[in-house]
Amino acid sequence: MSLTSPALAAKLAGLQSSAIRDLLKLTARADIISLAGGLPDAALMPRERIALAAGTALRDPAVLQYTESPGWPALREVIAARESTVIGRAVPPAEVFITHGSQQALSLLAEVLLDPGALVIVEDPAYVGALQVFRAAGARIVAVPLDRDGMRLDALEDLLAAGERPVVVHTVASFHNPGGVTLAHERRRRLAELAESHGFWVIEDDPYGELWFDRPAPAPIAAHSSQVIRLSSVSKILAPSLRVGWMIAPDHVCRAVELLKQGADLCGSALTHQIAADLLTDTAWLATHVASVRAAYGSRARTLVTALRTTFGDRVHCTDATGGMFVWADFTDGTDTTALLPTALATGVAYVPGAAFAVSDSYRNSMRLCFTTSDEPTLTEAITRLAKATDPS
Amino acid sequence: MSLTSPALAAKLAGLQSSAIRDLLKLTARADIISLAGGLPDAALMPRERIALAAGTALRDPAVLQYTESPGWPALREVIAARESTVIGRAVPPAEVFITHGSQQALSLLAEVLLDPGALVIVEDPAYVGALQVFRAAGARIVAVPLDRDGMRLDALEDLLAAGERPVVVHTVASFHNPGGVTLAHERRRRLAELAESHGFWVIEDDPYGELWFDRPAPAPIAAHSSQVIRLSSVSKILAPSLRVGWMIAPDHVCRAVELLKQGADLCGSALTHQIAADLLTDTAWLATHVASVRAAYGSRARTLVTALRTTFGDRVHCTDATGGMFVWADFTDGTDTTALLPTALATGVAYVPGAAFAVSDSYRNSMRLCFTTSDEPTLTEAITRLAKATDPS
Repeated sequence: MSLTSPALAAKLAGLQSSAIRDLLKLTARADIISLAGGLPDAALMPRERIALAAGTALRDPAVLQYTESPGWPALREVIAARESTVIGRAVPPAEVFITHGSQQALSLLAEVLLDPGALVIVEDPAYVGALQVFRAAGARIVAVPLDRDGMRLDALEDLLAAGERPVVVHTVASFHNPGGVTLAHERRRRLAELAESHGFWVIEDDPYGELWFDRPAPAPIAAHSSQVIRLSSVSKILAPSLRVGWMIAPDHVCRAVELLKQGADLCGSALTHQIAADLLTDTAWLATHVASVRAAYGSRARTLVTALRTTFGDRVHCTDATGGMFVWADFTDGTDTTALLPTALATGVAYVPGAAFAVSDSYRNSMRLCFTTSDEPTLTEAITRLAKATDPS
Repeated sequence: MSLTSPALAAKLAGLQSSAIRDLLKLTARADIISLAGGLPDAALMPRERIALAAGTALRDPAVLQYTESPGWPALREVIAARESTVIGRAVPPAEVFITHGSQQALSLLAEVLLDPGALVIVEDPAYVGALQVFRAAGARIVAVPLDRDGMRLDALEDLLAAGERPVVVHTVASFHNPGGVTLAHERRRRLAELAESHGFWVIEDDPYGELWFDRPAPAPIAAHSSQVIRLSSVSKILAPSLRVGWMIAPDHVCRAVELLKQGADLCGSALTHQIAADLLTDTAWLATHVASVRAAYGSRARTLVTALRTTFGDRVHCTDATGGMFVWADFTDGTDTTALLPTALATGVAYVPGAAFAVSDSYRNSMRLCFTTSDEPTLTEAITRLAKATDPS
C-alpha cells in the first residue's frame, strides 16, 4: 500500500533529505576530513561522571518508572534554579518543561503556536532543524538576514512596518548555527520590545550559550520580556544521548505542550533526567567540565580561523568563532561552494555549502565549517586541502 | 497571549484530561489502595542488571552521541532477530524502527497514515492512549466491541459489509488494556485476511505479549499478513524509563516515519538503546527475569480474580486474567461504577470506571482493576473495601 495523502506528501517534502545531504553522506569515508558535521565531540563528554551518576540514580527504583510528562521533578527544579540565574527572575518549576532534546520543544511549540499559514520569521541563513519543523507545520516563512551582530533588526522592523504580523520569530541568538554570530545586547532588548508591542512570540533557541570562548554572550532575550520562550539542552555541554532539552515558557504554554507531549510519547526518561539533574547540581564539577570543553573548542576554533585567514587572505571572509561549534566563511572571489564540494571531497575535505541553510539569499559563496570534532593539526590540514580544491592547478 | 487557534483547541480537546482522571489524582493518598494505576511494578524491574549494562555501555563514547533516527543499530538488530522468531519470517533491520516508547510509534503512524476524517476502527472499551492520538489526528473513530475472544470480527465484518472503509484497525490483541481479553487465533488469521482484501492497515499494539501467565498468546496477527504494523516495547518487561518501543513495518512506512521522527525529536538515546540491546541479548538472564515477572503478576492476578469471585459471586463477572496487567469486571446488579467511585475512594480503594474507556458503549457497570503494583494481601483487602463501598449498610 502506498502513502498517497497530499497533506502527508507536503509534510514529508518539508522534511525531505536534500541533495546536499545525500552528497554529505560520503563524508563518513575515512580519507575525508569532515568539517561538515554538526556534532559535539564525544571524546569530551563526561563518560565517567555519567557512569557514576547512572549508578547512583539506579539505587532508586523510581528512576525506572514512567515519570511526569513535563519531566522528572528533580531535573525541573535544577533547571528552574539555573534559568532563574540566567534570565534574572525567579522561574517557577511550572514554567520549565523538559523535552526530548530541544528539537522536541520546537516541534511541540510549532503545534501549539502555529496554524497553517501563520507567519514565522527565521534568520537567514537558518537553523535547518527549526526550518523543517516550521515548514512541516505549514507556516509561511519569511527570512531576516544576519550580520556580524546577529539578526538584522532593521530588516525585521521593515517587515513589521510593511504590515507583516509574525506569530513567532525564531532566533539562535548566541553563537548561531550556521552563521557563527551573536545577537548584540541592544538588539536583544529591542527584539523583546518589538515582541511586546507587536504581540509575537520570540523563540530563543539557545543550545550553544554555555560554549563561549572569551566571554559569555549578552543576557538572554528572555531577560527582557515574558513573550520569549527560551529553549536549551544539555546536548552540547554534557551528552546528546541524555536527550534532555527544555523550554522556559508561560504556564499556559507549558500546559498545552504537556497535553501534546502525552500524545506524542507520554514522558521522558526518569533515568537520563536524573543523570542530568545530578551533573547539573554538581556545580563545582560542572564548572570545571564546561571550562575544559570551552578551552578545547576555543583552541580548535582559533586554529581553524587562523588557518582560513592565513591560507586564503582576502579570498575568504569568516566569522571570529567566539563560541559555539561553527565558523561561517564566505568566498569573496565568486567561488561557488556547492559546485566546489565534489572537488573538495576528492581532495579529502568536507564542509556544508551555504545553500543548505539558505532561505531567501542563496549563500552560493558561503560554507559552514564545524570545528568541534577535529584536533588542531587536522583542522589546519583540512584548510590546506580546501585551498588545493579551490586551486587545483 | 492566549492560544486561540480553533485547530489547536480541537486537538487539545482530544487530549484533554477527563473528570475521571482528575478524580483519580486522589488515589495518590497513602490510605487508598489503588487498583486504578496502569504501571508495571518498579520493584520487579532489573535495576542491578540495568546498572551493569549502563556501566558496560559507557565504556564506548559512541553511546553518548546522537544516534540514527531509526535507532541504535545494535538494538535494531536484536529486535529484528527477536521479531523474526515471533512473527515467523525474517524481519530485516530496515523494517525495525525504534521509538520513544510505543506511544511515539502510534503518534508518528497517525501522522503518516491518517488524513483528517480518515476512518479508524478501535476496540470498545479502548486503549485510551491510542484513542487520544487518533482523535488528535482528526480521524473518524468507529468502535467494535470485545468479547471473551477479543475484537468481535463479526461486528467488523458488518461494518465492512455496510461500506465502511477503514484506513487503520487498531487492536491490543494480547491481554487487552483495559479489557483483559486476547484475540483468538482464528480471529487473528481472519483479521489479516480482511486487511488484505479491504486494503486497511492493522496496528497490532502488543505491549503485554510477553506477560502471559499460563501459556503464550497465539501467534501475532503480523504472522498472517504484511499489512500489519506491529508495535511493542520493553516498558512492561524491563523498564519504562529506557523509553524503548518499536515498530515493525514495511520499509516505505519506516522511511516516512523516519522523516517525521527527525522533525519530532531527531533521535532516541543511544545510551538507553544500548542498555536495552544488552539486556535483550542476554537471553538466559532475560528468560529468568521475564519468568519471575510473569510468576509475580500471575499470582497477583489469580489472587485478585479469586477475591472478586469469592466476595461478589454472581454480582460481578470478571475476566480470567491470563496475562497482562488488568482485570475487567462488570457489575451484574446495575451498580454504576462512576457513581460508586467517590464512595470507593472514601472506603480506601480506587479503580478506573469503565466509562473512562468507553467509545460507543457506556460501560457504566464496568471497571478496570490493575493488579501489578499490589501484593496479594493488599489485593484481597482492596476487594474487601470494594465490597464495603457497594454495601455501606
